Amino acid sequence: MTQFQSIPSLGLGLGTKNRAGAWLEVFYPQLWTAPPQEVLQALAPLLGETGKNQTLSLDETKLANLKEVLRPFEWAAEFCELAQRVQGTGVEARALTLVWHDQEPLDVPQIYLNLHLLSSRAVKPHQINLSGIFGKLVNLAWTNQGPVELTELDQARLTARLKGEVLVVRSVDKFPPMADYVVPKGVRIADASRVRLGAYLGEGTTVMHEGFVNFNAGTLGQSMVEGRISAGVVVGNGSDLGGGCSTMGTLSGGNSVVISVGEKCLIGANAGVGIPLGDRCTLEAGLYLTAGSKVNLLDGQGNLQGQVKARDLSGKSDLLFRRNSLTGALECLTNKTVIELNLALHKNN
Amino acid sequence: MTQFQSIPSLGLGLGTKNRAGAWLEVFYPQLWTAPPQEVLQALAPLLGETGKNQTLSLDETKLANLKEVLRPFEWAAEFCELAQRVQGTGVEARALTLVWHDQEPLDVPQIYLNLHLLSSRAVKPHQINLSGIFGKLVNLAWTNQGPVELTELDQARLTARLKGEVLVVRSVDKFPPMADYVVPKGVRIADASRVRLGAYLGEGTTVMHEGFVNFNAGTLGQSMVEGRISAGVVVGNGSDLGGGCSTMGTLSGGNSVVISVGEKCLIGANAGVGIPLGDRCTLEAGLYLTAGSKVNLLDGQGNLQGQVKARDLSGKSDLLFRRNSLTGALECLTNKTVIELNLALHKNN
Amino acid sequence: MTQFQSIPSLGLGLGTKNRAGAWLEVFYPQLWTAPPQEVLQALAPLLGETGKNQTLSLDETKLANLKEVLRPFEWAAEFCELAQRVQGTGVEARALTLVWHDQEPLDVPQIYLNLHLLSSRAVKPHQINLSGIFGKLVNLAWTNQGPVELTELDQARLTARLKGEVLVVRSVDKFPPMADYVVPKGVRIADASRVRLGAYLGEGTTVMHEGFVNFNAGTLGQSMVEGRISAGVVVGNGSDLGGGCSTMGTLSGGNSVVISVGEKCLIGANAGVGIPLGDRCTLEAGLYLTAGSKVNLLDGQGNLQGQVKARDLSGKSDLLFRRNSLTGALECLTNKTVIELNLALHKNN
Repeated sequence: MTQFQSIPSLGLGLGTKNRAGAWLEVFYPQLWTAPPQEVLQALAPLLGETGKNQTLSLDETKLANLKEVLRPFEWAAEFCELAQRVQGTGVEARALTLVWHDQEPLDVPQIYLNLHLLSSRAVKPHQINLSGIFGKLVNLAWTNQGPVELTELDQARLTARLKGEVLVVRSVDKFPPMADYVVPKGVRIADASRVRLGAYLGEGTTVMHEGFVNFNAGTLGQSMVEGRISAGVVVGNGSDLGGGCSTMGTLSGGNSVVISVGEKCLIGANAGVGIPLGDRCTLEAGLYLTAGSKVNLLDGQGNLQGQVKARDLSGKSDLLFRRNSLTGALECLTNKTVIELNLALHKNN
Repeated sequence: MTQFQSIPSLGLGLGTKNRAGAWLEVFYPQLWTAPPQEVLQALAPLLGETGKNQTLSLDETKLANLKEVLRPFEWAAEFCELAQRVQGTGVEARALTLVWHDQEPLDVPQIYLNLHLLSSRAVKPHQINLSGIFGKLVNLAWTNQGPVELTELDQARLTARLKGEVLVVRSVDKFPPMADYVVPKGVRIADASRVRLGAYLGEGTTVMHEGFVNFNAGTLGQSMVEGRISAGVVVGNGSDLGGGCSTMGTLSGGNSVVISVGEKCLIGANAGVGIPLGDRCTLEAGLYLTAGSKVNLLDGQGNLQGQVKARDLSGKSDLLFRRNSLTGALECLTNKTVIELNLALHKNN
Repeated sequence: MTQFQSIPSLGLGLGTKNRAGAWLEVFYPQLWTAPPQEVLQALAPLLGETGKNQTLSLDETKLANLKEVLRPFEWAAEFCELAQRVQGTGVEARALTLVWHDQEPLDVPQIYLNLHLLSSRAVKPHQINLSGIFGKLVNLAWTNQGPVELTELDQARLTARLKGEVLVVRSVDKFPPMADYVVPKGVRIADASRVRLGAYLGEGTTVMHEGFVNFNAGTLGQSMVEGRISAGVVVGNGSDLGGGCSTMGTLSGGNSVVISVGEKCLIGANAGVGIPLGDRCTLEAGLYLTAGSKVNLLDGQGNLQGQVKARDLSGKSDLLFRRNSLTGALECLTNKTVIELNLALHKNN
């Protein structure tokens, strides 16, 4: 488990509130990580204690006030420019949000800021506190007319029809698609509905139509992603995930081990990863490697050196997993001698 | 096979007709099942014989007439309110539709009413007559400007371009996405294009991005659906479908046995279900269980008790299916003794 | 490898340019293959050398000029009609494009014309030169407000929000979805984001929600596609691809052999094709057949006749591939005698 760092990030968000005034979602056009101490001090009268996560809903007066407070700081030039653009527009739901990366986010604006930080590559997966976000996020209908609360969806649909319009519902989910909020540099996403806000895509990553990336998960560098990256799963630079392959999630697998994939791995199409993989590992297409499976261990000459459970090979590098097509046995080929293998395995225990 | 019940349902629909006046699709903002006998009688002069499925296109006069006829009935208060809202709007294609759950739907408005009844949980899969619907539904382009007939699509696209707009075609299909018509209470649908109108989602069901639910199919209660629920397949309460798993459809499998999954089952990622499963069954990730496969049957102590075809285990509960990772053999583990197993199997024959 | 033919095609396109005047994408409402020689000659003063691929941006003057030049030709009646409709509209980015099927396309308008030709069934996969298109296509955000260059996406999103609108990003890709440009006759596409422009869908093909078709790939006739057709893969008439099945691509597989599937084949759900298949072949659900796998070859009586690598069975017809569920061995059943098998195999070597 990564230890979160005590770093603050700041955002000026435009969002949506329901009729009761509760936040539904927030878009942050820009993010500011680690603002100078004097900026935080200047914000204290507005935000209250700046050592804690804070959300301030901004009416026109507070927005003007905020601009006044930040104007003296060269650091805040872009911030003030954004505030200027927002001022006087029809957008009423606006938030000044401060999150500390190690603190649990307390409301929707703070959660959305955390998710933006991940998707903008300001923090990597597991580097920001996401405790309790499922309970606080609101399940919304994401439509061509913006997010709609579910209690209002039937009315919205009827109203659209009566006007001769059509309300297209893209998803009913607690998380919106990432690309409606953030598209980091150097990525392709063939079907944007399959990458959730809060995903981390490294520069040079392509997520093909069958690819999927959940929040707090993703690729650290260049990857071709045609399979599914479950929540919490991180894939190292240069690794490719074949079409329809699966990485077992902690939510779905009933397993507390977080799956990861090292660098330069190749997961074959329709395969599955049930253990953390080291670097330069290959899983044959169609092979699902569950943690409890017994595996025949072969050395560089293809000689059987023993049997282990797949989980004992967690995190090891330079392994090739395949199913022997004549005996049906799971095999793990290494480029190591039996002595190196034993040493490696003992280190693991 | 469920026997359909002779129950009527009524809907007031807003829809689309083509230039020739043929119905393309209908949206029913509300549904009324089992209207009182006196309401049906009052509708008879408008609808004709109310013991049969009926569709009445409503011009302004007929709509006003309908309101007059139903006003006396307390039962019809919401119906009249809806009629009131519809009146005088630009929507010209309006239908009063009556379907009996055991009668074959005769036209597009009746089919759409049946599909609404399923998605609204008024009827469960296999409880309403859907005979012949494939032949009667119209293949349409579902766009951001509403449904477009395919013969008019090229013109619509060009017209949009010449106006500087863009016509986004979401699908070309006989069935629209469910969420554009109905979102029942207590569900999440991460990619709305993957749940067809006519799907039945139990309260507490989440359909993730890789999940899919066809019409006349779905989940009866709480389920995490990350796999594909084919047409006709029903999944019991508390069962989860892992990412990319498959349930064999009668359309695709060339098989007349309707697949079902009992309660509290777990289908692993990338697995496949080729037989009906009882309760508390588990399929290992990556295992495709086809009906004709021979399976080694193991008792609670892991001792081999014999071999059966997978189809002989249809509908049995408390089974764990896996592939032995060293021998490649399909195995079925039970918590039963050999005597109980034999009894269970004989019952099946 | 198919030899490309030296045939010209002509298009009048409406498209999008970025602020610097570079083409981003082009829509061709109609296509004209093999225009008469005198038409090409008449176009020469406008286009320059008509024996080469040419793109001409059309301002109002040039568009009027083009109409004058083509008016005398009966062949060009529809062309002139289209030019007439385009004239005077707000669409500024217009192109007259000429491509020769055997020449490498040089710019975005030419590439888009080639892709249109494929999706409109004017050419089959591998019948048109697509060399170098990846490098020339522009990675764009495809939104509900049209294609947006990535450098302008953040501004477009903010601008939309400030107007109270929502910018829905459907994909970030070099290829748009086919159905936004072309829907050929007699197809269904359940999720349009999963079929790229440049796909070829035969009449009678249905691409279900889990289906996928890349560019320069597709189905030649009637097919039910519930699996993934990778770039370059062609599927013969009457073949069905089960849910989630995979066809190994040359991009992903690190393999130079182009996969193809003959006629009347059945690829089971979650299966995978790693070799070219002949006609009437079946792959059992869940079976991934990689080229290097050793396979037990069984004759019509189910007797073992020997072992071969899967790649040695490339292109052979009437084969059934399955994994023996008790021994775990890959098996290939044929309806041939051992002598016929040997002959067939030797022919292959």
